[in-house]
Amino acid sequence: MRYKAILKYDGTRFSGFQLQASNLRTVQGVIENALMKMSKGERIVVFGASRTDAGVHALGQVIHFDYKKFLPPEKMRLALNSLMPLDVEFTDVQAVDDDFHARFAAHEKTYLYRVARGRFVDPFKRFYTTHYPYPVDLAKIEEALKDVVGTHDFTSFAASGGQAVNKVRTISKATVESSESENELKFYFTGDGFLYNQVRIMVGVLLEIGNGRRPVHDFLRLYEVKDRKEARWTAPASGLYLQEVHYL
Amino acid sequence: MRYKAILKYDGTRFSGFQLQASNLRTVQGVIENALMKMSKGERIVVFGASRTDAGVHALGQVIHFDYKKFLPPEKMRLALNSLMPLDVEFTDVQAVDDDFHARFAAHEKTYLYRVARGRFVDPFKRFYTTHYPYPVDLAKIEEALKDVVGTHDFTSFAASGGQAVNKVRTISKATVESSESENELKFYFTGDGFLYNQVRIMVGVLLEIGNGRRPVHDFLRLYEVKDRKEARWTAPASGLYLQEVHYL
Repeated sequence: MRYKAILKYDGTRFSGFQLQASNLRTVQGVIENALMKMSKGERIVVFGASRTDAGVHALGQVIHFDYKKFLPPEKMRLALNSLMPLDVEFTDVQAVDDDFHARFAAHEKTYLYRVARGRFVDPFKRFYTTHYPYPVDLAKIEEALKDVVGTHDFTSFAASGGQAVNKVRTISKATVESSESENELKFYFTGDGFLYNQVRIMVGVLLEIGNGRRPVHDFLRLYEVKDRKEARWTAPASGLYLQEVHYL
Repeated sequence: MRYKAILKYDGTRFSGFQLQASNLRTVQGVIENALMKMSKGERIVVFGASRTDAGVHALGQVIHFDYKKFLPPEKMRLALNSLMPLDVEFTDVQAVDDDFHARFAAHEKTYLYRVARGRFVDPFKRFYTTHYPYPVDLAKIEEALKDVVGTHDFTSFAASGGQAVNKVRTISKATVESSESENELKFYFTGDGFLYNQVRIMVGVLLEIGNGRRPVHDFLRLYEVKDRKEARWTAPASGLYLQEVHYL
């Protein structure tokens, strides 16, 4: 029986989602350990929609795996949650067709990036946002986000270490919200796929545009120059959340 | 020059506010270390309004200390924040009269207690709330809170280890908010003083009243019996915040 599951995790104490050769603590690792306990020592491979990096959080990561017996989905969710550490929570489990694949069937993904403003780091946000103490002009960022939407060659926004050869991606939605009460900016990006560190590099450029360190339409230049060095700063992992994975 | 300062801290990685004889990390300790650096090795004693326990947070702890030179308050705040670890932030510093005392001049204090609902622990709330997965009837809690307000003998709500002989305290305000969007209950208590673990023990009783495990007016009985054992459960430190210290 194939199961699709949606989970939240606090990425702070994980070396990312993907299982590592070494002894590092990963989200895939703790889930596979739980499934191994449930299946009397047999390894069950977990496939995730997104390989989030160390320190990156998830509000709606999606995985699939095959389990020999049939457990009603709500029982499966209970069993998994009872075996999870407190930094992982399964929010939904469904039984799905055998051809469902968490990663390859994903149509689009939405990422959230939280930026804490104010002069000093808020103690309660240090692992859950990026701190940007400089002034930003929201109108400039909103203007720049119009250049982000669409189909573009994101070579300038791809960190080395990624495996993608084709760096063209389509972003269908890119928005920013300013929350006065939380003193935060929240960026949302929805697209068919994202290159390695792409969201974090884009946020770095957007903040620099908001601060006036770059011209408003610098994205158009960066698409042309296809040079990672020109995009400079990669915003930290702590502000990034895999918000949702969309399937048709 | 005497300074009054307001600070926030994430209590998770502190063994409470108060300096310990042993080598434990405390809020008072990190502040006194910073002041020692600023004053070339001389110890400056820090007085806090409340000795929050290990794991208890603060949104508005107040301290005072004496500093030999005069620094403009905003410069003092900058200097302190630049020497603080990321889990402490000074939000305000003022120069005050020499007779100001953070603890003895405090007229009232307000504590917040956050309770996360839902069946499973939310990974992002595990250090910042208490998880209570059982159903609660908000109307019962609101009715019980009326018994909390006023002047009462809180002997049943004082953990052993406290030094107070007189266990009579006055609570001027006790409210609960239910946030649907956050799936949380938030309790607020304002009073002239609180006994050791009093808020946490009261929250334990209130949740049991809400869940129907105790009669709605059980506070009235507990005031009479003066027996800590009758109040049973102490809600965990992780949900408790020193919200504000009030001065006349």
